[in-house]
Amino acid sequence: MPTFHTRVSEVGPGSVNLRGYPLAEVMRELTYAEGAFLSIIGRLPTDAERRLVDVTLNSLLDHGYVASTITASRYIASGNPQFVPAVAGGLLAAGSNTLSPEHSYGLLRAAADLRAAEGLDFIGAAHRVVEGYVQERRRLPGFGHPVHKSSDFRADIVFEVAHELGLAGDGVRQFEALHQAFVALTGKQNIPINIDGALAAVGSDLGWSSDQTVAFALLSVLPGLMAHVIEEINEGVPLRYIEDGDYAGPPESPLPARDTTNRGAQ
Amino acid sequence: MPTFHTRVSEVGPGSVNLRGYPLAEVMRELTYAEGAFLSIIGRLPTDAERRLVDVTLNSLLDHGYVASTITASRYIASGNPQFVPAVAGGLLAAGSNTLSPEHSYGLLRAAADLRAAEGLDFIGAAHRVVEGYVQERRRLPGFGHPVHKSSDFRADIVFEVAHELGLAGDGVRQFEALHQAFVALTGKQNIPINIDGALAAVGSDLGWSSDQTVAFALLSVLPGLMAHVIEEINEGVPLRYIEDGDYAGPPESPLPARDTTNRGAQ
Amino acid sequence: MPTFHTRVSEVGPGSVNLRGYPLAEVMRELTYAEGAFLSIIGRLPTDAERRLVDVTLNSLLDHGYVASTITASRYIASGNPQFVPAVAGGLLAAGSNTLSPEHSYGLLRAAADLRAAEGLDFIGAAHRVVEGYVQERRRLPGFGHPVHKSSDFRADIVFEVAHELGLAGDGVRQFEALHQAFVALTGKQNIPINIDGALAAVGSDLGWSSDQTVAFALLSVLPGLMAHVIEEINEGVPLRYIEDGDYAGPPESPLPARDTTNRGAQ
Amino acid sequence: MPTFHTRVSEVGPGSVNLRGYPLAEVMRELTYAEGAFLSIIGRLPTDAERRLVDVTLNSLLDHGYVASTITASRYIASGNPQFVPAVAGGLLAAGSNTLSPEHSYGLLRAAADLRAAEGLDFIGAAHRVVEGYVQERRRLPGFGHPVHKSSDFRADIVFEVAHELGLAGDGVRQFEALHQAFVALTGKQNIPINIDGALAAVGSDLGWSSDQTVAFALLSVLPGLMAHVIEEINEGVPLRYIEDGDYAGPPESPLPARDTTNRGAQ
Repeated sequence: MPTFHTRVSEVGPGSVNLRGYPLAEVMRELTYAEGAFLSIIGRLPTDAERRLVDVTLNSLLDHGYVASTITASRYIASGNPQFVPAVAGGLLAAGSNTLSPEHSYGLLRAAADLRAAEGLDFIGAAHRVVEGYVQERRRLPGFGHPVHKSSDFRADIVFEVAHELGLAGDGVRQFEALHQAFVALTGKQNIPINIDGALAAVGSDLGWSSDQTVAFALLSVLPGLMAHVIEEINEGVPLRYIEDGDYAGPPESPLPARDTTNRGAQ
Repeated sequence: MPTFHTRVSEVGPGSVNLRGYPLAEVMRELTYAEGAFLSIIGRLPTDAERRLVDVTLNSLLDHGYVASTITASRYIASGNPQFVPAVAGGLLAAGSNTLSPEHSYGLLRAAADLRAAEGLDFIGAAHRVVEGYVQERRRLPGFGHPVHKSSDFRADIVFEVAHELGLAGDGVRQFEALHQAFVALTGKQNIPINIDGALAAVGSDLGWSSDQTVAFALLSVLPGLMAHVIEEINEGVPLRYIEDGDYAGPPESPLPARDTTNRGAQ
Repeated sequence: MPTFHTRVSEVGPGSVNLRGYPLAEVMRELTYAEGAFLSIIGRLPTDAERRLVDVTLNSLLDHGYVASTITASRYIASGNPQFVPAVAGGLLAAGSNTLSPEHSYGLLRAAADLRAAEGLDFIGAAHRVVEGYVQERRRLPGFGHPVHKSSDFRADIVFEVAHELGLAGDGVRQFEALHQAFVALTGKQNIPINIDGALAAVGSDLGWSSDQTVAFALLSVLPGLMAHVIEEINEGVPLRYIEDGDYAGPPESPLPARDTTNRGAQ
Repeated sequence: MPTFHTRVSEVGPGSVNLRGYPLAEVMRELTYAEGAFLSIIGRLPTDAERRLVDVTLNSLLDHGYVASTITASRYIASGNPQFVPAVAGGLLAAGSNTLSPEHSYGLLRAAADLRAAEGLDFIGAAHRVVEGYVQERRRLPGFGHPVHKSSDFRADIVFEVAHELGLAGDGVRQFEALHQAFVALTGKQNIPINIDGALAAVGSDLGWSSDQTVAFALLSVLPGLMAHVIEEINEGVPLRYIEDGDYAGPPESPLPARDTTNRGAQ
């Protein structure tokens, strides 16, 4: 059995050493956002980082049913009105189509590679990356939103505060260039950088891995998701279902007769 | 660390002893339903049990969107188009309002206790149990279905085959008596025994614990659930959402001003 | 299809109304702990509540492998090195044996009922509740810890800060009385109130439902759980397993011969 | 809201049309393996397919603690002794390091592309594919097992029966060639084709997509996983944990002092 190691914490009778600090002091002296940063990133945040983390963690607090996480969790709670399974099940909807700053990291890496390998500037690299997606008719991650059509105010605020605090770096700059290139190459003026893209840009500038950025995105989404699960359980609708309106399969016919000596069920 | 023990299997180089039989022979000689029975129940089924298990395992193969498991799994796959998380997340919707023969076991236990303690017969015990639910205005588990209103053909077939094979015992008899008492006490002629109730009655007669019965219910539901997840992934709808139609909370107003020297976010 | 309602949020183009406040202002002006409180509880916290919530949310930041959530999530990540499924799967280990302040709520409700119905004081109610558990030889929820044997410093700090801020009320008082009664009735001096019990006592005094308290407990646990999942994925151990040491089932023997005309697999 | 369509089933009062057949007939006349095949693949199996599906579905019935799915599910049940969450959580461990025939599909696709594009034969294509992995020092999916070191009997039986029934085609042939090439290029005689590789080869020959093959793999694994969860719940070990032996992070030191006017927690 491979032995477990960890750099996260050390637990002994009456004490927990969390990333080098006594949990008792962390409890008494840090905000939760600082404690979460220490746990996930492995060091204390600076004052500027602390501000930006609060803004980031508040960006996805709830987005109602325009989030498949929420809708999934309410259907789960409607069948199984228990808090923990519905919360866990809702999280499972976070993936390539939502809550996935990791896909925008791919854009940033591709652009950074072009800047390094070919000496392109931010806008030059952006054009090359976007061209690739446009040619392959792939959806560009980090852009567009079904409701916030011309501008995603959550992304705008995250960028604004990052600039204000001096924490915007190559990630934000490159993402803004990718957006410019996207508008130039497609003529679509009105597709904004969305919150997933903004989280990737800022997370990258803070030195976070894409999984670390997803960690903050999931924390951000959870309070609203939890509130919806509690609401669903308290509302007590016994079992939600959708009328089965649109069957596109073959019409019904009897099972074919077959040689019963061969039948598994006999 | 507590040591793990198990009576399920023993694994060694080139062999697996599954509940006392070589997995190699199980693979070559048993149907999957027999292998599943052996794994979950711990012994080989009789011929009659094998027939009834196939009927039971086929009873819930799919029930479309009239199942919160399915709808939940499709919303999960719509955000995160990956097979395993959507299947696992759909299962989490199995609970007190659907796929929960364990709640019908409670009825059977209550009636069996009354038969033993007070010498009541099946119908007498049924009346007492149902009266309790009616007085407390609780929903009786194992009865009624939103679509199959006057009769749940799946329950009917499970009972029919159990009778045919001589496997119907006190569980089936008691559940039928509970239904009679329910009709007599409520005057509702048209609320049938549903498939959850039938699985509990038959599972109980086969000597299965309620968790073992739920195990077979989940296996029964999985092929359809898996087919829906695959369909959702292949259909490739990027992100399903529901229009946010009905907000019942407070209207929007600005955050209250507060003494900024106290502000956490400053 | 039952219509969804919600009091959590209202989403429109360019805006989100979260529990009555613009999400844009919430992002700019509140800490994350305040935003989470607003989402889950439905109103802004007072200054004192804000302090206590930070302490509470930091109490479970990590507890290493002495937490089945962590160990489960690392085994999941070892088979399926993806962030989201391992985090969701780890949460599923939160239940009656860990991270379950809801079970301690039961103690508080039982004691409150006795105070109301029989005019008992806190210590009198405590004695009656504990006696019941002792007689039925049931484990008393909210007491004892495998590592923090004589005192759980996390519970102590939560209580200390609640007292300091004037937020300790009947819940804390009753839980302390339950502990006194437990020591008196069992003679076990060294079994402390644990963090689950403390969260229930304080959550109850803050007016939170048990699901709301579990919501804060899960948020508290997540940063450490996420850090462990990231560590496991980055470490890249291909597949952790335990040597199969202790098989307690029947010895292996061949499958019995049977009449092959009856065999399902033929 | 995007409308749901489905080709899986159509549900009406008193009937379910499953993939073109009445569920009532499916319950009465098919084995569960046939019903599962119909649901997942969308048509009835031939007699030969039915035999091979039973063998395949029995191949993974249990593999004890040498499976991170099992260990994960037991840790979950140890914290939260409930059947459904532990089963769902265990499934989440199915991924790139275990139960993932989809990764072996990649090998087969790569080889098929080389055969088509460059006119290579099976062994020629195999050499080119394996060379790529060896040069990049990547683990070759579908080969090797921690316990069944020189031969994985489950893979051997699946191949043997596929040959016997005339169902082995290009997939099996190509996988066997990949193995030959692997032995030739690395000199490692003793690393066998494992069950994941065999399932991919056979699934591919049956015309299954990789998700469909994973569906059968998960069904195969579930009965044993369910048996372990039931065993863990019944055993009632309150909370399993691992002693925290090996902390590799920074030693503990006090939190740095900081300008309290900036402190979030004040």
